[in-house]
Amino acid sequence: MIIDCHGHYTTAPKALGDWRERQIAALAGGVAPKASELRISDDDVRESIEKNQLAKMNERGSDLTIFSPRASFMAHHIGDFETSSTWAAICNELVHRVAGLYPERFIGAAMLPQSPGVDPKTCLPELERCVREYGFVAINLNPDPSGGHWTSPPLTDRHWYPVYEKLVEYEIPAMIHVSTSCNPCFHTTGAHYLNADTTAFMQCLTGDLFHDFPTLKFIIPHGGGAVPYHWGRFRGLAQELKKPLLDEHLLNNLFFDTCVYHQPGIDLLTKVIPVANVLFASEMIGAVRGIDPQTGHYYDDTKRYIEAADILSAADRQAIYEGNARRVYPRLDHALKAQGR
Amino acid sequence: MIIDCHGHYTTAPKALGDWRERQIAALAGGVAPKASELRISDDDVRESIEKNQLAKMNERGSDLTIFSPRASFMAHHIGDFETSSTWAAICNELVHRVAGLYPERFIGAAMLPQSPGVDPKTCLPELERCVREYGFVAINLNPDPSGGHWTSPPLTDRHWYPVYEKLVEYEIPAMIHVSTSCNPCFHTTGAHYLNADTTAFMQCLTGDLFHDFPTLKFIIPHGGGAVPYHWGRFRGLAQELKKPLLDEHLLNNLFFDTCVYHQPGIDLLTKVIPVANVLFASEMIGAVRGIDPQTGHYYDDTKRYIEAADILSAADRQAIYEGNARRVYPRLDHALKAQGR
Repeated sequence: MIIDCHGHYTTAPKALGDWRERQIAALAGGVAPKASELRISDDDVRESIEKNQLAKMNERGSDLTIFSPRASFMAHHIGDFETSSTWAAICNELVHRVAGLYPERFIGAAMLPQSPGVDPKTCLPELERCVREYGFVAINLNPDPSGGHWTSPPLTDRHWYPVYEKLVEYEIPAMIHVSTSCNPCFHTTGAHYLNADTTAFMQCLTGDLFHDFPTLKFIIPHGGGAVPYHWGRFRGLAQELKKPLLDEHLLNNLFFDTCVYHQPGIDLLTKVIPVANVLFASEMIGAVRGIDPQTGHYYDDTKRYIEAADILSAADRQAIYEGNARRVYPRLDHALKAQGR
Repeated sequence: MIIDCHGHYTTAPKALGDWRERQIAALAGGVAPKASELRISDDDVRESIEKNQLAKMNERGSDLTIFSPRASFMAHHIGDFETSSTWAAICNELVHRVAGLYPERFIGAAMLPQSPGVDPKTCLPELERCVREYGFVAINLNPDPSGGHWTSPPLTDRHWYPVYEKLVEYEIPAMIHVSTSCNPCFHTTGAHYLNADTTAFMQCLTGDLFHDFPTLKFIIPHGGGAVPYHWGRFRGLAQELKKPLLDEHLLNNLFFDTCVYHQPGIDLLTKVIPVANVLFASEMIGAVRGIDPQTGHYYDDTKRYIEAADILSAADRQAIYEGNARRVYPRLDHALKAQGR
């Protein structure tokens, strides 16, 4: 089975974006739309999925996507907690409907109603609902709800511990994923995303978070930002900081996805990072939707790179495609087993 | 000849740091020390260099280092323009003394007296002095003088144009290099440096700076941050943004150094980025000073990785070690020729 651990509902029906625009417009003064004013039929959902993600999953041969609301639309910097709370509830419910319509092809991961300067503990009711009622198997945690101003404490700070306690209790991992940058220095998908990945990894390296939470698991998306390419630098920095070797210090808890959109990048990732820490992902249909003129294939068709990575054995590929995901997302494994898979 | 294009005076005599501490202390109220109160003898300089950078250059076999003040100590966020101006003048003069004592082994690159919110044009007198009086061949340009808060406009903004006009006039390139992070989210050398490299590249990708300055040249240090590892992503993003191919759009103007501290990283860099855009560098004695237990050699002994990179021919290595630097730093080439090299 091929599990894509990183998909967002980037193709949601236009009504969703229209509703959000009304919500944002109301922040300047006016009446915010009610959640119940958003009308999206099952047929709308089906069309948005079948012509897009599902079509590509079938073409490329992936079986199941861990699916979450569109990352760049989380935009936690907009409005206040109430704004984020209403928006997260809507987006998560829509993902839940996708998973309900295609229970063998999509399973949910939640966005949280984060808001800059607000205690992350306020996110727990939405997290609980997504896990208990919707059967979601993971969350996306935004280390920078300010959208590129980095005003929250590092991920190793006790500020975040209420969320981690719940993740450990529920046995669900967090993908560390920022949203839109509202800092003009940072292009959202070309700089802010990758910077956040590198930043999150280095925060974990300098801290001792996994001493406090030995079973907590983070997925660092986009191939780990700059980390695998600079693996020697990070090994050396850990040494300077008198930390244990990275295998012991971080690799029981940190995992990298395969959202790296060319062969040499995947070759490096799979050479440098232990296979047990690599999870198949494509983040399609996402930041890079075009066809690579050098290969004639979609940049984000990452399965091709995994298939072509010489260093991987069949068992390695099975781990990257399925085995690791079942281990890192125990609730996914339970759900699959309940389906007889 | 082997030219290391990225060295900082990280081993300056203790008196320099002591002076800086007095300068910083005076910002809280008190009398700032005068530049003339800093006393460092030629013997002090010699000792700091001969036991450190020069010893390692001799051990490793590099001939010449393009040498600039310690990057993390630029700390442009401290104080105001006056603070930075005095500090930059002192640091640059000290580098000039190193180059004067070892004219065949070190040549200067300037730090600028940048200060957050201050017009970069205020940096021009120091830049001019460094080029005309000291014979420096490059500058370090900090895209984020705030130290991790990213409050300046992107590098493509006209804000920076006065500096670029001077660089073009003098035929000197800029290494885009941040300084210490005072944002607790960003570890200085493990996150902020790499993030800045990626950010600078993406700013150039989204903009059209090199249309306005076709001969302007930037070096993106630390192997280009996350860029070569995600080269497919950047090619795809350029496509989405309707920009020309990266070769044409950016690679006449952007160059990557080889400060990547393990073999797989250098293998990727030299495979993905055209040889003409790769400049030898080690940034020793810098962020990662230890010995890699996997190899028994210093992490930052990057010449070993270049030597071992299978894909490179002898002519490629010559370009990376010397030829490219002579082209990207025309004043370096002139200086070498004047020495009969």
